[in-house]
Amino acid sequence: MAGRWRGAVLLARRLGSLYQRPAAPARAMASCIDASIGLNEEQKEFQKVAFDFASREMAPHMAEWDEKEIFPVETMRKAAQLGFGGIYIQPDVGGAGLSRLDTSIIFEALSTGCVSTTAYMSIHNMCVWMIDTFGNDDQRHTFCPPLCSMDKFASYCLTEPGSGSDAASLLTSAKRDGDNYILNGSKAFISGGGETDVYVVMCRTGGSGARGISCLVVEKGTPGLSFGKKERKVGWNSQPTRAVIFEDCVVPVTNRVGEEGQGFGIAMQGLNGGRINIASCSLGAAHASVLLARDHLSVRKQFGEPLANNQYLQFGLAEMATRLVTARLMIRHAAQALQDGQSDAATFCAMAKLYATEECFKVCNIPLLYVGV
Amino acid sequence: MAGRWRGAVLLARRLGSLYQRPAAPARAMASCIDASIGLNEEQKEFQKVAFDFASREMAPHMAEWDEKEIFPVETMRKAAQLGFGGIYIQPDVGGAGLSRLDTSIIFEALSTGCVSTTAYMSIHNMCVWMIDTFGNDDQRHTFCPPLCSMDKFASYCLTEPGSGSDAASLLTSAKRDGDNYILNGSKAFISGGGETDVYVVMCRTGGSGARGISCLVVEKGTPGLSFGKKERKVGWNSQPTRAVIFEDCVVPVTNRVGEEGQGFGIAMQGLNGGRINIASCSLGAAHASVLLARDHLSVRKQFGEPLANNQYLQFGLAEMATRLVTARLMIRHAAQALQDGQSDAATFCAMAKLYATEECFKVCNIPLLYVGV
Amino acid sequence: MAGRWRGAVLLARRLGSLYQRPAAPARAMASCIDASIGLNEEQKEFQKVAFDFASREMAPHMAEWDEKEIFPVETMRKAAQLGFGGIYIQPDVGGAGLSRLDTSIIFEALSTGCVSTTAYMSIHNMCVWMIDTFGNDDQRHTFCPPLCSMDKFASYCLTEPGSGSDAASLLTSAKRDGDNYILNGSKAFISGGGETDVYVVMCRTGGSGARGISCLVVEKGTPGLSFGKKERKVGWNSQPTRAVIFEDCVVPVTNRVGEEGQGFGIAMQGLNGGRINIASCSLGAAHASVLLARDHLSVRKQFGEPLANNQYLQFGLAEMATRLVTARLMIRHAAQALQDGQSDAATFCAMAKLYATEECFKVCNIPLLYVGV
Amino acid sequence: MAGRWRGAVLLARRLGSLYQRPAAPARAMASCIDASIGLNEEQKEFQKVAFDFASREMAPHMAEWDEKEIFPVETMRKAAQLGFGGIYIQPDVGGAGLSRLDTSIIFEALSTGCVSTTAYMSIHNMCVWMIDTFGNDDQRHTFCPPLCSMDKFASYCLTEPGSGSDAASLLTSAKRDGDNYILNGSKAFISGGGETDVYVVMCRTGGSGARGISCLVVEKGTPGLSFGKKERKVGWNSQPTRAVIFEDCVVPVTNRVGEEGQGFGIAMQGLNGGRINIASCSLGAAHASVLLARDHLSVRKQFGEPLANNQYLQFGLAEMATRLVTARLMIRHAAQALQDGQSDAATFCAMAKLYATEECFKVCNIPLLYVGV
Repeated sequence: MAGRWRGAVLLARRLGSLYQRPAAPARAMASCIDASIGLNEEQKEFQKVAFDFASREMAPHMAEWDEKEIFPVETMRKAAQLGFGGIYIQPDVGGAGLSRLDTSIIFEALSTGCVSTTAYMSIHNMCVWMIDTFGNDDQRHTFCPPLCSMDKFASYCLTEPGSGSDAASLLTSAKRDGDNYILNGSKAFISGGGETDVYVVMCRTGGSGARGISCLVVEKGTPGLSFGKKERKVGWNSQPTRAVIFEDCVVPVTNRVGEEGQGFGIAMQGLNGGRINIASCSLGAAHASVLLARDHLSVRKQFGEPLANNQYLQFGLAEMATRLVTARLMIRHAAQALQDGQSDAATFCAMAKLYATEECFKVCNIPLLYVGV
Repeated sequence: MAGRWRGAVLLARRLGSLYQRPAAPARAMASCIDASIGLNEEQKEFQKVAFDFASREMAPHMAEWDEKEIFPVETMRKAAQLGFGGIYIQPDVGGAGLSRLDTSIIFEALSTGCVSTTAYMSIHNMCVWMIDTFGNDDQRHTFCPPLCSMDKFASYCLTEPGSGSDAASLLTSAKRDGDNYILNGSKAFISGGGETDVYVVMCRTGGSGARGISCLVVEKGTPGLSFGKKERKVGWNSQPTRAVIFEDCVVPVTNRVGEEGQGFGIAMQGLNGGRINIASCSLGAAHASVLLARDHLSVRKQFGEPLANNQYLQFGLAEMATRLVTARLMIRHAAQALQDGQSDAATFCAMAKLYATEECFKVCNIPLLYVGV
Repeated sequence: MAGRWRGAVLLARRLGSLYQRPAAPARAMASCIDASIGLNEEQKEFQKVAFDFASREMAPHMAEWDEKEIFPVETMRKAAQLGFGGIYIQPDVGGAGLSRLDTSIIFEALSTGCVSTTAYMSIHNMCVWMIDTFGNDDQRHTFCPPLCSMDKFASYCLTEPGSGSDAASLLTSAKRDGDNYILNGSKAFISGGGETDVYVVMCRTGGSGARGISCLVVEKGTPGLSFGKKERKVGWNSQPTRAVIFEDCVVPVTNRVGEEGQGFGIAMQGLNGGRINIASCSLGAAHASVLLARDHLSVRKQFGEPLANNQYLQFGLAEMATRLVTARLMIRHAAQALQDGQSDAATFCAMAKLYATEECFKVCNIPLLYVGV
Repeated sequence: MAGRWRGAVLLARRLGSLYQRPAAPARAMASCIDASIGLNEEQKEFQKVAFDFASREMAPHMAEWDEKEIFPVETMRKAAQLGFGGIYIQPDVGGAGLSRLDTSIIFEALSTGCVSTTAYMSIHNMCVWMIDTFGNDDQRHTFCPPLCSMDKFASYCLTEPGSGSDAASLLTSAKRDGDNYILNGSKAFISGGGETDVYVVMCRTGGSGARGISCLVVEKGTPGLSFGKKERKVGWNSQPTRAVIFEDCVVPVTNRVGEEGQGFGIAMQGLNGGRINIASCSLGAAHASVLLARDHLSVRKQFGEPLANNQYLQFGLAEMATRLVTARLMIRHAAQALQDGQSDAATFCAMAKLYATEECFKVCNIPLLYVGV
């Protein structure tokens, strides 16, 4: 009683039923990959808001943003009016006060409009969360409100030219000088770099290793703060990527988030949510791909009939849908675990990112396999 | 912010932490793949019962059952005393009255002891469920109690030599003759065939196609009922597999479950649960494999250190764990959908079987890749 | 005696040996993926010429061609001086007279410099081959010489908006009118369209199906010949892609290659070589990717040592190298079969394209998996 | 001009043509996966002999050998009469004097009859090759002739309970005592162990590491030589597997092959050929699987027509055939490289084993995916 074929036949029949029952075209497929399954009413509501925003305010401009390398500031500010500039931030500083799962739902929906822009927004949210969670009251009330409204934008500065995966070995140094730190070093591949206002910077205030790292907020305009030239990328051009350079940058000690030596922990805790968020962006891309593939199959004719009648392609669509659904389940499971503070939350976040980014990459590429001569 | 390696490093570190912290050896790994995550107290309780039964009553005998081709009747009867002979059957006829999700949890746990025996038990349960759900009161009270207690065993008879995936074209015929049907034909690859007592048989009482099919219960000992010789298999020998042959078998009309023509629908509805159940058996096998692989990695030394220190193998273990967790999420999602009567339940059941059987097959085989010269 | 790990250990050791033996750095790796293994002296010679041309004349400009959408006419003419404008074309009309295997070797090498430009050149070659092979003497001597020298460029016009894989159902019609055909219809996704001079067009001169198709050469400047706007693509912008439109285009009968009704056969025979050629382009891309990955691993340091010391990445490199080598073997096997006129040549060409494009796509993407946080 | 689907359509059409052209049923398929393509007349001849032997003398008994755990001594002696007991052994000691490529061709063919038995024979051949290549004249003329005729059988003793992949750390010690070595230690998972006559044993005569290892021939009957109980395996039962135990075993110094300290090099050089051979066994299994799948598809009917008309299954068969062909090309490439003494031969042998065992495993399992409900 094992077997791929029969299962796939069944799946394909259901997924494919839209093509043969023109009276109820989108039903079978739409419902099994429906992103709202299992959500409560409130979640369904803001999910709808996010899907609508994605289709009206983002999708029509996505290609232009990418081609002309536009960082869509005004669009993001509109999104912030819906609460998407500080989704999992506390309400007293302007955040929407939503959960990690809520956040994943929103980023998934927004990504169907523009993955690149949504991915930047997820990093922005992560930065605000770090200040909201580990900052003192002054810091929270100073920095968070304009970030939540996206009057200001934030960048996360961890990676260095010589330390990527090995973040604990970063070299950017912050030497204490009275009430200030003197910051020297550089950060690489910073999303939003050069066009954002608030830089959440991991730097070394103490000895080597993770325990010597602290977290400073550096504001644009600080003397000694400069930027590399915009990185050339194959896509994702609606978010600029630059090196961020510190040369004798004077940063007040009051801009330090948390205690000296807490920086690495703050960075890593931020990334737990960051992993779910970026996985959610992949999920939105995959979701959009499945819908596009489905539509193409029903419109495009070959050999005298729609591609949708082609068994191999039906099975391909069934496989795409299955990967989409499993990725969504994994991400939401991790988001809930993180929200609940489960002891394995960080592991599930890593699993979600590993699984979802790989599988959704495949989902987006499966249709490629069926084009050409 | 995409990337397999970093995610895998993190996963591996967490999964691998058991090896480096001998004081709390099984913690990190055990918790992230813990099958009890997300369950309520009652579920955890019977899950524990099932795991214990698997490790005490099944695992020690699994190899012998397979080698000597023993159908472990007494062991299954013990399992039935715990309610596992009629898990999702109504209590008034001896069932445990549990949900589809509960059922999945139990079959997953039992499969860590013996996949083959558990898989048979899942078919038995499916048969009882079909009688319990579609049978009339007489049928329910006659057939279900001895099946729930596993005093009697059931077999599901759908596949024929010439009709597997295309079940609707089955040829076994049941001609009405007064108060009886005269049954002729044969069924292939029947789990339990020849050693079970109650055969739930799909047969043709009407015209061609799905609508001509009805469901009859045929009891062992009925004249004209015979069996092929035991099929030779590579494994799964604790459940005998035989052809079931009907030659002018007289079956009373009172043994027909549902109306004439309803048989195909009954068969398919049974299989929705059957798909979840068999997927759950795969899951249990994968779970056991992950634990065995983890233990082997910590014990076996090469190049002067435990295999667990080997990065490639750590990543392999992380991948196994990730596939295990995603398969479990998919199965439980489908089980809940079926329990709730969601409109997409059948689709999710097909997805769960497609995904879980394939991924768990890979999980069981990944360790193979790391053995040899 | 089976096992991936040991094999991979060994492979990784050999591939990785370059990193640990700085005295002979590139030897181990370079030699096992060396594209010249198994070639004769003459082949090695023109292979070297092609590699040199790729690295000097193409690679430095590839990014600019793509970004600025430059069709590098002068560069291709330089290539043509080396014989690459008519590689498998007979010498009496200006071709190099080389074999299919030789052709594959050259396109593989050129693609390490620019896949997109080389892919166009392979289509150009295919068109010239079709005229050289199926044309009469007049046609051969008229069209081939300026194409071989790339004074003129050619495009292959088969696909239509409504017929891709199902080429035999194409609709572009050519009605006989005295000594001319009147051509109406349109072709889609034509490489070089709008900027090339010679269009090899499959069109319908007879009834439906493959047997009603003929092959006409249409020259730029013919009244009624026009082009759609340039297609937007994610890459491959050094070759323009446009629709080609025929409105009452008058084409002399003397421009028909082969007899009426032979067009489909000509198109398909051209594609046998086309499949090998495009597979060879993928191979060149993969070859370049393996070298880039190897270099990056030896330069980039993390956790205090080069990435090359990281076992998981070593194994990844070993896998890339293995896929590269198997793809090359498959392509060359198919090329030889086609050259020899083996009865299975077309099957091997299809295998080569299926296998090489998929595996080389993976090779190019494997390094992606190791980037990020 | 990229795309899986079209390629697969084409492949499937060709592979599938056998079903639609009953007049020439096996032609299309048989020819594209024909194992004799590219071979010279002599190779085709002994390949035919090997295929015939496999189908007449091995295939009919394979299942019984496995079930009853029969080591088919007489069958192997018959094979030895055809030269298969010492294929790549020099003729002056009874060998057939064939090349590595010839050897691969033969083992591939024999494996279509019984993989397990052929795999043992490949190990036997490897042992004889080691004595033939590194032994002195006395050793060659003493040991090789009865091994080539398979009057005696050989086992390769490298792996130990504590050293598998890390062979250089083996512990079995051989202490010099006058004209003898006193051997102590044990070897694990020895193919043929207990039923063979000549044990080629790697043992430590010097310090730690690879350089302290020597190679001794130990004959059955030597006091102190004993065997563990037969290992239980899921298959491959026609070759017994046991531990080999040495307790103060007295082995004459004249039984040492090569100098002291050369053992590891001998073992590794033996394994170069061993890797090709075992890869060839996988290839034979895959070849047989493709043929079985093809036949099943043309015979089994579902939904009113042969499975062969089912597009998804056609594509599955095309994929199996493609993997088979690429694996064969890789193996033969490696065999030729080894034969020619190319500097990269060992790398290609590792690639061949890595690639062929994995891909052929998939080929054998692909059909599994299409069975069941």
